[in-house]
Amino acid sequence: MLEFGAKRRLSAAQRTERREFAANASRAAGRLSLPWFRQPIKVSNKASAGSFDPVTEADKAVEAALRQDIGAAYPEDGLFGEEYGFEEGSSGLTWVIDPIDGTRSFMSGFLHWGVLLALFDGQDPVVGVLYQPYTDELFVGDGEMAELRRADERRLLQVSEVTSVYDCTLASTGPQFFSGEERQAAFARAVDAAKQTRFGGDCYLYAMLAMGYVDLSVESGLNAYDIQALIPIIRGAGGVIETWSGENPALGGDVVAAGTRDALVEAQELLSKA
Amino acid sequence: MLEFGAKRRLSAAQRTERREFAANASRAAGRLSLPWFRQPIKVSNKASAGSFDPVTEADKAVEAALRQDIGAAYPEDGLFGEEYGFEEGSSGLTWVIDPIDGTRSFMSGFLHWGVLLALFDGQDPVVGVLYQPYTDELFVGDGEMAELRRADERRLLQVSEVTSVYDCTLASTGPQFFSGEERQAAFARAVDAAKQTRFGGDCYLYAMLAMGYVDLSVESGLNAYDIQALIPIIRGAGGVIETWSGENPALGGDVVAAGTRDALVEAQELLSKA
Repeated sequence: MLEFGAKRRLSAAQRTERREFAANASRAAGRLSLPWFRQPIKVSNKASAGSFDPVTEADKAVEAALRQDIGAAYPEDGLFGEEYGFEEGSSGLTWVIDPIDGTRSFMSGFLHWGVLLALFDGQDPVVGVLYQPYTDELFVGDGEMAELRRADERRLLQVSEVTSVYDCTLASTGPQFFSGEERQAAFARAVDAAKQTRFGGDCYLYAMLAMGYVDLSVESGLNAYDIQALIPIIRGAGGVIETWSGENPALGGDVVAAGTRDALVEAQELLSKA
Repeated sequence: MLEFGAKRRLSAAQRTERREFAANASRAAGRLSLPWFRQPIKVSNKASAGSFDPVTEADKAVEAALRQDIGAAYPEDGLFGEEYGFEEGSSGLTWVIDPIDGTRSFMSGFLHWGVLLALFDGQDPVVGVLYQPYTDELFVGDGEMAELRRADERRLLQVSEVTSVYDCTLASTGPQFFSGEERQAAFARAVDAAKQTRFGGDCYLYAMLAMGYVDLSVESGLNAYDIQALIPIIRGAGGVIETWSGENPALGGDVVAAGTRDALVEAQELLSKA
């Protein structure tokens, strides 16, 4: 299991080098998913009866390729991926992989999914990439900057300046992902307060938050690999991301993100109200 | 207002000609939306306070271009569009336009939106196009065939063969679009029965149904221009689409679509149960 530990500090040059490595590795590995997108795919079911958690060949191909590339470039770093688990390193750094985030979206032919890769320094993810191979969109961030790269286009990302939940476009993957009455009620309060709510999106909604088109996101029950890559992108675009109770979101759980601190705090108050 | 009338019959050659015209016109007009996609956009608000129904310059540019192209090619045909209303023709045929379906998705930077163009023969839409300019995906159908065209790729569409709602991936734009307790309860029954539910999608979910990745869709309160273009695509891919009560869906309302007649009928029973 990935846990918090001592913070391994990187120089700006080291961070930039790993950011560009992550961008290139995600692009190369992400393309391996395309033969399975919108094709008949071999689906195994790793969840128990009643739930639905597809594992695709695409997932495995992408994660295996990333682990190989990372192992070759940074053999002392650890690895933590959705498909192949945790492998401790000796450098104090861990690469965190969700080979296909938005698997259900991928399997249904929709476009809001992507390959997620983050570099965790023991306390925070310091580099993050979201790559969508079908649209060839690469979102990359390192906490200081975030940009979208597509073909020859490069665009710096900048969050919105909306300061109140009541003026926010709220995004969340779906109301069914909040477990327990308390969380459902909390989410309902956020939905009621927000100007409008968009469902669907998985990782992609955080990219839209980093671009300023979504003002607030509220999600629950996230794994570390669901959220780590998105944290440096949101922070690099000027946004804020925490747990509902104001803690470090790096290991997942109940996560809220916003373009402004004011909107985040107001959302956290709504989510914690008894 | 668009209404049912006498059915104006087209020969196969006439239908094919108009299908290709519709494909080309949608592509040309659809591209006019791109300067507004993910850019600061001028939003006017045509809805009254409390609701949110954005009108964008993109909407107007696309519909104006389509009306001009159609008027030049088929001056005797009628026009019915979301932005510029109804203009009766003398041919018995009417072109039905939703310049940007999924406006909220468009405005939030997401990818599940498109330009919709249909040709209505008084009883049924006989040609339909969904074009997504950012991904350059063109879905086209005429009730007999349906295909996806993207760059040099052409792929015939074929719905899924799932015959029971309990095995279906259900898609719907969002639970908040069902008005009244009765409709909400009906939709909840469908969600409970389905294997899984995906929210979000607007027009795009019908394209995924035509491709066989979504097995069932349930929506409510649709306008004629929201659904007409999608009907010949779904039927051309072998699917079925009706109102919840089994009537012609061409003027919108409460609409259900499925890959198979069995799944459709089972869904209609769930939706009508007291």
